[in-house]
Amino acid sequence: MKKIAVDLKGADRPQEELLPGVIRALSSDPSLYINLLGDESVLLPLLDEAGVSPDRYRIIDSPDEVSNHDNPADVIRSKSNSSLMKGIMLCREDPEIGAYVSCGPTGALFVASIMVLGRIPHVTPVLLCEIIRDDGNRLCIADCGANIDCSEERLLTFARLGQVFMQTRGTKEPKIALLSNGSEPGKGNELVKKAYQLLEAAEDLDFIGNLEGTQVYSTEADVLVCEGFAGNILLKSLEGAAKSAVAHARKAAEMLEEPARSVMLSELQKVYDNYDYNSLGGAVLVGTNTPVVKGHGSADATTLFSIITIAAEIADNHLSDRVREKFA
Amino acid sequence: MKKIAVDLKGADRPQEELLPGVIRALSSDPSLYINLLGDESVLLPLLDEAGVSPDRYRIIDSPDEVSNHDNPADVIRSKSNSSLMKGIMLCREDPEIGAYVSCGPTGALFVASIMVLGRIPHVTPVLLCEIIRDDGNRLCIADCGANIDCSEERLLTFARLGQVFMQTRGTKEPKIALLSNGSEPGKGNELVKKAYQLLEAAEDLDFIGNLEGTQVYSTEADVLVCEGFAGNILLKSLEGAAKSAVAHARKAAEMLEEPARSVMLSELQKVYDNYDYNSLGGAVLVGTNTPVVKGHGSADATTLFSIITIAAEIADNHLSDRVREKFA
Repeated sequence: MKKIAVDLKGADRPQEELLPGVIRALSSDPSLYINLLGDESVLLPLLDEAGVSPDRYRIIDSPDEVSNHDNPADVIRSKSNSSLMKGIMLCREDPEIGAYVSCGPTGALFVASIMVLGRIPHVTPVLLCEIIRDDGNRLCIADCGANIDCSEERLLTFARLGQVFMQTRGTKEPKIALLSNGSEPGKGNELVKKAYQLLEAAEDLDFIGNLEGTQVYSTEADVLVCEGFAGNILLKSLEGAAKSAVAHARKAAEMLEEPARSVMLSELQKVYDNYDYNSLGGAVLVGTNTPVVKGHGSADATTLFSIITIAAEIADNHLSDRVREKFA
Repeated sequence: MKKIAVDLKGADRPQEELLPGVIRALSSDPSLYINLLGDESVLLPLLDEAGVSPDRYRIIDSPDEVSNHDNPADVIRSKSNSSLMKGIMLCREDPEIGAYVSCGPTGALFVASIMVLGRIPHVTPVLLCEIIRDDGNRLCIADCGANIDCSEERLLTFARLGQVFMQTRGTKEPKIALLSNGSEPGKGNELVKKAYQLLEAAEDLDFIGNLEGTQVYSTEADVLVCEGFAGNILLKSLEGAAKSAVAHARKAAEMLEEPARSVMLSELQKVYDNYDYNSLGGAVLVGTNTPVVKGHGSADATTLFSIITIAAEIADNHLSDRVREKFA
């Protein structure tokens, strides 16, 4: 059995709109057990009505909620009754919970997770995000914005965390690349040049060299190592450009006659969704004692379902234990 | 009359295939005069045949050529008879030449330009690239890869060079933004936070704040300031994602019935070209005594024509004089 915890409050949509994602996850995976953080009075009748067995879940009644207006540094003290904090406390108390899911405010979630859950020894937690390569496989960006101004040693840690993460996601021998301003070995700023040496020397990593922005969709790499500032620029630029290109294509498609018009517009919507990194499963914080999967604030039940699927996979493959072994 | 110099060698295509771009530029702009670097025996008969008046151009016979195999640092000494070096020498001797165009190897071109042409006092030359915003206007990326590991003072210089450049391109009061990992004022790495303070305090700049990667096509900014590593990641990611998205859309378009199929594929090609920064007019080195417009090695006559148009505009508006005044 895989155990996870899911915070249903603090997102743009109310908990009752997100709950169908939980119900779908439970019905599609019989070995999943979910600790739900939210209002028992709201959730219990809906779960009963949907016929979900009480053996599959537990509700931890959480009257309070963390919002974007709360100062992330204060949340641990001032919002201990919030769903977000109660979930973190629960994960700390129960090491069998293999992943924590929340669509609450990013800053508060990560600050409280790192401080309360604690870091795995010798690890700086990394924020991971996945994009879909042109061949349909995933490329994991490590780090995508949590760690700004890193050392080369930290980039080496990110490579190893990315490697273990992709192994739990089903890639046996992940290939590691380094984000740079050119693919040749000598390219990069001072940090990237130093990190290149470390990655090349690391015998536990299948390092394939530098990767530039034009190559991220055509690469064979499974993990792209970068300092969080560059990773964030990368990820957001990819989304911005893809959406801009699809918007231009959409204008052209709107001029077509039916039925081609509808067919093309519907296909373009799929392309658009493919580059919307918020809907692709959220970002994952790896390196805390419990991994944290962060869904976007605008998540709906479908997004939540796909995020829970990732969390269940992480829990099932014991991501935290593997990280602990790797850095022991 | 505007005078420029155009190097026709060192690109992937031979000079005779690029020459039609020169002829088209001369015929569409009667006030343009071009110094041509290439083989007189090849170019002269073709220009005669096309009926171009000998008053409109001069050929500086250049038997030698710089290739990608040449070490950029050696080119000044070892390749003084090359078209690339002869063009630079000519620009140094004749201050009336307002811009130098070449599709030769990037490293050699920029190293030799900075060393032989010299820098304008108090200026670190910046490499500029333009992208097309969704509203059809241009956003100039400053720097896009020449200056890696910069100080905040240098980013301030880039902002001013970008401002003057966009003024010569027709934008009266360019808006300046700073590339960061979020649009809020406190966002950024240490460099960006310090640069933010300098840009905000600069009374000669219309600074509108931080800009993130998702916003580059929807922004009102005309100049996006960044350190060259981040700028290069940005520019290449934009191209990579847009081309990947268009490739997916193309697969869908190929399933349509005719004539919708052909119409849509042709429209998608236009979208694709819109994000191909190599074909958009090349990169411009601003801050050397003569500005240098670099076309991609794969340039054809059409690309060369559009690059010459930019060079002519820069020359006509006395970009170097304006930079000199700005930094006097």
